[in-house]
Amino acid sequence: MSAGAKARAAFRGGVAVPSSGWAPGLTQANLVVLPRDWAWDMLLFGQRNPQPVPLLDVTDPGSTSTVLAPDADLRTDLPRYRVWRDGGLVDEPTDVLDLWTDDLVAFLVGCSFSFETALLDAGVPVRNIEQGRNVAMYRTDRQCRPAGRLSGPLVVSMRPVPAHLVATAVQVTARMPQVHGAPVHVGSPRALGIADLDRPDFGDPVEAEPGDVPVFWACGVTPQAALMASRPPFAITHAPGHMFVTDVPDAAYRQL
Amino acid sequence: MSAGAKARAAFRGGVAVPSSGWAPGLTQANLVVLPRDWAWDMLLFGQRNPQPVPLLDVTDPGSTSTVLAPDADLRTDLPRYRVWRDGGLVDEPTDVLDLWTDDLVAFLVGCSFSFETALLDAGVPVRNIEQGRNVAMYRTDRQCRPAGRLSGPLVVSMRPVPAHLVATAVQVTARMPQVHGAPVHVGSPRALGIADLDRPDFGDPVEAEPGDVPVFWACGVTPQAALMASRPPFAITHAPGHMFVTDVPDAAYRQL
Repeated sequence: MSAGAKARAAFRGGVAVPSSGWAPGLTQANLVVLPRDWAWDMLLFGQRNPQPVPLLDVTDPGSTSTVLAPDADLRTDLPRYRVWRDGGLVDEPTDVLDLWTDDLVAFLVGCSFSFETALLDAGVPVRNIEQGRNVAMYRTDRQCRPAGRLSGPLVVSMRPVPAHLVATAVQVTARMPQVHGAPVHVGSPRALGIADLDRPDFGDPVEAEPGDVPVFWACGVTPQAALMASRPPFAITHAPGHMFVTDVPDAAYRQL
Repeated sequence: MSAGAKARAAFRGGVAVPSSGWAPGLTQANLVVLPRDWAWDMLLFGQRNPQPVPLLDVTDPGSTSTVLAPDADLRTDLPRYRVWRDGGLVDEPTDVLDLWTDDLVAFLVGCSFSFETALLDAGVPVRNIEQGRNVAMYRTDRQCRPAGRLSGPLVVSMRPVPAHLVATAVQVTARMPQVHGAPVHVGSPRALGIADLDRPDFGDPVEAEPGDVPVFWACGVTPQAALMASRPPFAITHAPGHMFVTDVPDAAYRQL
């Protein structure tokens, strides 16, 4: 049984914890599930905003499986889900067996966990990992390019990076465009409309060390922010930090 | 007036010639236009087959413009179009003003013209340009990953490359994933199901020089082959070689 299959079996069995640290080296993905009627809008939203919404796979309507992990069941194999109605969060169950219908399309979206491993491999410290916290995420004042009925702000994750390693962090992540790629911004939170780094909109505040510079990457929470802004009648996503563990090695998304 | 706008004005005025050599340095794109009902299938086909079908832009239904050239009109600004009904070619007009409806969605697909410039810049000879011919293209025995009702074979373009420059050609094109990226295959036509290089399925036969190796790239004709195989009731495409000239520099699609 592969490390990915083991993690998914644990989550399927009811283990409802964040997936960080499970099956190291395998890509984890954000999940967004929408009715067929809204699927065009989300697919186009991803095509038009590839940095925050890098689509790793999109399922056929009603399918519960993905090429990213052929033996997985998308209805049960994430540790925790979120259920949305009219843009509002209504539940956080550990499976969505009773909610899945033939009308649903699932989108698997790249996640920055993949490039955190690459940063560590290159000698760039990742403060949120050192501090045992979720990464800090912020709504910006930049709007994504709308697609049909879907629109919303660009959400970014921020990692404090030692000034002499910012260039390395840019180079390492630029080689991974399917998991958000190079930073969208380095250095000035106010220029992105972020008033206070200590008060993230999602995740935990992360402390900078002396000499660190805040570096901002496009974030896979962006589609959740678009759901909240655009209010489709029904949606399912992963719960923050409770990702889908695939069978695809992170290295598959590193360009040579 | 920019070089791109000049080229489009000439084509809009009735100049119906291949677009190769017009507005050098600007990206040219393949065009596929489908009714809304089939647009999901094509968008998903592109998402699932990014190497042959790299989507540079997808329009809103009914729109006649694209972010790739904001002042262009997609109904008039290509030198020649093809009109398809039930998978069969029915006309090759120089505009499609009388065929465009609010129900149509346009897909702009990356084109290997962009990487031919990069190959020349890197000292790799491009035989089809030297010989003044269209590139040679072949149906392969590999199937694309289907999407909804759309399926079809991978189509490749072939360029003979001097053996000592094959590695350079791979490196140069690998940096341009939005215009087909690295070759899918080097050296053996039979392993792709190609019986005779002298008889391409599209374009012109191109002669190899002594010491050349055939190198195969995924080709933007792949969606046309899928239309022929999948037979949507109506479609518009560019005519082979008669591409859409954008305002986007080729360099925008070269990764650093």
